[in-house]
Amino acid sequence: MKLYYSPGSCALAVQIALEETGADYDAQRIDFDRQEQRSPEYLRLNPLGRVPVLETPRGVLTEVPAILAYIAATFPEAALAPADAFDHARMQSFNAFLSSSVHVTYAHYTRPYRWSDDDACRASMKSKAVDTFAEQMGMIDAQRLAGPWVMGEQYTVADPYLYVIARWFAKLQPGMAGLARVAEHHERVQARPAVLRALQKQGLAPA
Amino acid sequence: MKLYYSPGSCALAVQIALEETGADYDAQRIDFDRQEQRSPEYLRLNPLGRVPVLETPRGVLTEVPAILAYIAATFPEAALAPADAFDHARMQSFNAFLSSSVHVTYAHYTRPYRWSDDDACRASMKSKAVDTFAEQMGMIDAQRLAGPWVMGEQYTVADPYLYVIARWFAKLQPGMAGLARVAEHHERVQARPAVLRALQKQGLAPA
Repeated sequence: MKLYYSPGSCALAVQIALEETGADYDAQRIDFDRQEQRSPEYLRLNPLGRVPVLETPRGVLTEVPAILAYIAATFPEAALAPADAFDHARMQSFNAFLSSSVHVTYAHYTRPYRWSDDDACRASMKSKAVDTFAEQMGMIDAQRLAGPWVMGEQYTVADPYLYVIARWFAKLQPGMAGLARVAEHHERVQARPAVLRALQKQGLAPA
Repeated sequence: MKLYYSPGSCALAVQIALEETGADYDAQRIDFDRQEQRSPEYLRLNPLGRVPVLETPRGVLTEVPAILAYIAATFPEAALAPADAFDHARMQSFNAFLSSSVHVTYAHYTRPYRWSDDDACRASMKSKAVDTFAEQMGMIDAQRLAGPWVMGEQYTVADPYLYVIARWFAKLQPGMAGLARVAEHHERVQARPAVLRALQKQGLAPA
């Protein structure tokens, strides 16, 4: 398998999951500064021009919640997803919330041009996105972290996904202040050897 | 099980999936005009104040891709998802794209207030959303519809989800013109008895 990533993007969650499995895989950095995600070669892999892409012997996969569940299903010995169907659905529900609400909120801060061509509007979106991001992280902190991991006793692919999104949030003001459970979870995830390996492979420092 | 829905929302995809299984379930309409999605009772079910919610004997599920996959897993005899892990992941990838990109685009048309408090900005988002929605539907038409169903020969939960989103798109200008494959798919889905039952139960006409 081969992972296409940009360092610190949501592709980091996928690289962590791969490291947790012990799978043999390649990782290729896509340089957003050089607009490599817009190259004809890359657009053939993913017409959206986004990361991550996971290339498998069967074909290409996009979308983080789908890729993470696929990795968990492909390496059952790593036990990265609940075996029970309802618990699996709750994990997928959490990951879908991160993908379609929380990541979308953050994208209004980093890439508001996706939703308006107007500069003043982009500034308005950026500003509101910071508040909404804080609300959503607050909800996760209060209601969605069973502890010690997202799903409770089992570490699953929901954990690296939350870790990456909390990493983004920590860089904004006021950061993790007021999110005691998310901050604790962050440290706990970051103590895992697989996470440290993934960070190092993407050239990132723990945060 | 009990489905909480607003007519014609993405909860329609869930109701279609339930009808396809022949499962015994209740459906309760949440009246958005009366802001029932903001009632304390409903916010206890889903703190986001959105539909759908699927109440199960094990607890509550939110997020369409997770609910649809759960219904498929719970009623395997209905064969609403591929048995093969990679094909299942491709279906989940498609549904995740609908949820985190296409539905999000449409929400900028219907609910731009989520992302800006400024009226001019909301108008700017609404306008761009129509173009982006058309681009995304065009990409689905060109690249993601294996035919006759989304995943090929097997009708899966991806089909009612695309059906509902195409139903939204069809009401905008210029509608389905130029989307021959999506339009054909739409008719094919709408010819299914389970789909007609779900429409009738939500008080909707075929479209």
